[in-house]
Amino acid sequence: MKLYEKLVHDIAEAIRAGVLAPGEKLPSIRQACLNHKLSPATIFKAYYELENLGLIRAQPKSGYYVSNHVLKTLAAHNTPLPEQESMTVAVSDMVFSILSSIKDPATVPLGSAFPWPALFPLERLSRSLARATKHMGAAEIVESLPPGNRHLRRQIAQRYLMTGIQADTDSIVITNGAFEALNLCLEAVTKPGDLVVIESPAFYGCLQALERLQLKAVEIPVDPVRGMDLEYLEQMLEKCPIRACWSMTSFQNPMGVSMPPDRKQALVELVTRYEIPLIEDDVYGELYFGLQEHQPAKAYDKQGYVMHCSSFSKTLAPGYRVGWALPGRYEKEVERLKVITSLSTSTIAQAAIADFLQHGGYDRHLRKLRAGFELQQHQYLHLVAQYFPEETQVTRPNGGYFLWIALPEYVDALLLFRQALEQGVSIAPGPIFSVRHQCRHCIRLNYSKPVGPDVERAFKTLGQLISAMKLGK
Amino acid sequence: MKLYEKLVHDIAEAIRAGVLAPGEKLPSIRQACLNHKLSPATIFKAYYELENLGLIRAQPKSGYYVSNHVLKTLAAHNTPLPEQESMTVAVSDMVFSILSSIKDPATVPLGSAFPWPALFPLERLSRSLARATKHMGAAEIVESLPPGNRHLRRQIAQRYLMTGIQADTDSIVITNGAFEALNLCLEAVTKPGDLVVIESPAFYGCLQALERLQLKAVEIPVDPVRGMDLEYLEQMLEKCPIRACWSMTSFQNPMGVSMPPDRKQALVELVTRYEIPLIEDDVYGELYFGLQEHQPAKAYDKQGYVMHCSSFSKTLAPGYRVGWALPGRYEKEVERLKVITSLSTSTIAQAAIADFLQHGGYDRHLRKLRAGFELQQHQYLHLVAQYFPEETQVTRPNGGYFLWIALPEYVDALLLFRQALEQGVSIAPGPIFSVRHQCRHCIRLNYSKPVGPDVERAFKTLGQLISAMKLGK
Repeated sequence: MKLYEKLVHDIAEAIRAGVLAPGEKLPSIRQACLNHKLSPATIFKAYYELENLGLIRAQPKSGYYVSNHVLKTLAAHNTPLPEQESMTVAVSDMVFSILSSIKDPATVPLGSAFPWPALFPLERLSRSLARATKHMGAAEIVESLPPGNRHLRRQIAQRYLMTGIQADTDSIVITNGAFEALNLCLEAVTKPGDLVVIESPAFYGCLQALERLQLKAVEIPVDPVRGMDLEYLEQMLEKCPIRACWSMTSFQNPMGVSMPPDRKQALVELVTRYEIPLIEDDVYGELYFGLQEHQPAKAYDKQGYVMHCSSFSKTLAPGYRVGWALPGRYEKEVERLKVITSLSTSTIAQAAIADFLQHGGYDRHLRKLRAGFELQQHQYLHLVAQYFPEETQVTRPNGGYFLWIALPEYVDALLLFRQALEQGVSIAPGPIFSVRHQCRHCIRLNYSKPVGPDVERAFKTLGQLISAMKLGK
Repeated sequence: MKLYEKLVHDIAEAIRAGVLAPGEKLPSIRQACLNHKLSPATIFKAYYELENLGLIRAQPKSGYYVSNHVLKTLAAHNTPLPEQESMTVAVSDMVFSILSSIKDPATVPLGSAFPWPALFPLERLSRSLARATKHMGAAEIVESLPPGNRHLRRQIAQRYLMTGIQADTDSIVITNGAFEALNLCLEAVTKPGDLVVIESPAFYGCLQALERLQLKAVEIPVDPVRGMDLEYLEQMLEKCPIRACWSMTSFQNPMGVSMPPDRKQALVELVTRYEIPLIEDDVYGELYFGLQEHQPAKAYDKQGYVMHCSSFSKTLAPGYRVGWALPGRYEKEVERLKVITSLSTSTIAQAAIADFLQHGGYDRHLRKLRAGFELQQHQYLHLVAQYFPEETQVTRPNGGYFLWIALPEYVDALLLFRQALEQGVSIAPGPIFSVRHQCRHCIRLNYSKPVGPDVERAFKTLGQLISAMKLGK
């Protein structure tokens, strides 16, 4: 990271955290030079960049100020949940209409769950693929049966080790993406009618998985600052015969929140005490901003109750469908279920990823990807501030590529979704993330697509539709 | 096919069908020249080949005779089934110990369900892969979401058309191999506790699928000559609230039998009358011997009750994990279930197969593969005749790569499996193909591995173990 980039990062972080409040004056160039021991040119460059991001504005003959239109951050809150404890799940219809909208290339995919694919090293992956398959022996086909390609599993085990997690090569099961891993883990530890703890709001794929397996959801509120409400979780564990718990502990989809390390640890201790498996969806874990790695809850798992699931689909190779589970004490059940569900994960995709991890510069690619997402988050927040009403509240996640946006109460997110789609813009409306179709005025925006005229136009369209809703009231 | 090859095929077929009986004299070379209008050299070559295959023997100064050790063909019979109508299913433990044995390269994999991978054009596939992915646009990743790569689905639709089946490109759902397709189809039309008709004996993956979905099996006997007992099936449909029917109508695993066309048609009419989906597992359909294509039951499906499933895993690209379903009236349910189970099939594998189908000479490869399997069936039958006891009965399928062998009653196939495995030979014991662990003295042998000293040694080992069992009685 260059010096000026570090400064941009630090100031943006301070604004994000509220250390620098809207309207507050920034140190002068001269003062900043002294504070940071940097040249005026570097300070200028940083301030110029911050201005471009819409985070600060220059006031002639006065200096630099934190923008007034800096958005309100969604504050910590407790979502009161209705009385029922468990719910059957039915969200698929809504989700499928959104998925099919994403397939239209003319639509600006702000509602997509996928990262913008042009950000990935597709050509280098293709070279890995060619190298790995050119002399692929016939024997490798059988050897890639579950638990999967040994070379790939070893590489994944090494990456676990780097984040301080001891994972045996043979305790990893390769799957068709993280989504299959999550589904297998859930199926391995439940039977129809069981109660399962999920987050509220939650990744809609989680809701669909429960729907498919005829499980009942016990929703635990997710707070935009602290993540899952552990106190409420404990009450529910005490009260109900819960069979499993599903949580996205880092850069939660849709809210973007990460549980602080002590809360991750507390979560693991809780499920261990109740002897309940924790299915940890960690697909965004590698997409942290800054230099501090995010450890998953798995890092605190001493007794094997955490079933950690992740993939390369959001970080390296979308479309290859290579993910994995590290299911702890449930390893054998998950491996067997993999065999009897889809037999094996594509041999060639496994081999290509293994080759790339060894030769392709995965970490270099990740650093670039993270920096890009961080920059784009600022740019998208700037667009939100520019086009959305003043009362809008946003999250400012420390990673991933989603913004969770609470629009004014008069906005019906489902109506906005339908109207926007007619004008070539997709968004993810809040109700698809909730069993009870709550979050009616919230939307999730994907900021992985680099800003261009189409994205600007999309925001303008959304702004106009929202204004019209206000007038309609 | 060369002239002498045609003659070999015709005579082998006549022996298989019993037109030429054991011990019967073949026409003299001179007579054969006249009969077939072929040169003496061609007749010699054919007889020489038949002798190598163990089908005929030369008697000095007398002529050629059909071998006396020609094996007894397993005759049509009705397996009496015990009284209960439906059974919960639990075979996984046995199947997993067999699967893991296959992964050991030192074991001769006669028990494997997979075709010998060296028979496949892996290098040409790798070239297709390189060509298809080199300039793969980012957009293709989203476009390959279910129902799947359009180019691939169009190629599959064209192949359906060639066998006389009208299949719309958009009615095909690409899956991770046929096995996922079958699982999705079954899950789409059932709920836990439902009754499902299956074959007895059946592909063990079918039994595992029922076990996983907590379905109850209603077993219908499969006759080695006519296939599924349709009269018994009709009784069961009349008597029980059956929700689905699963059948492998061509080259059934494990018996190898194909239902004659009129019985396929009758089966479709039956399920249509009862308005029950027929899940048709047709993974071996392309591996027919001779020139006559095998039409699946789907060809007779006027009202969309047949859910036809197949793949490229047995015919072109093992390990790529590309299969599909043509689920008829259940298309939408299957497509949705695919999305919420494993999201998508590997983009690169889909693209590579599509490229190969267009440029790689798939039909030429298939012709070679079929001819190889047909030859190897003769060779393996020769080994059975040479090493197994006289009372052994065999099937002589017209396609695929499995022999179903009924050994003398004193043979315990499970014991034989364990003993053989200790000596580096895997076989598939009969009981894994049955809910009630029937077929205790039957085994399934995979003849896709070209005969070499290891295969010969494996047969010798099996023969010795079987002899020891006789003495043990």
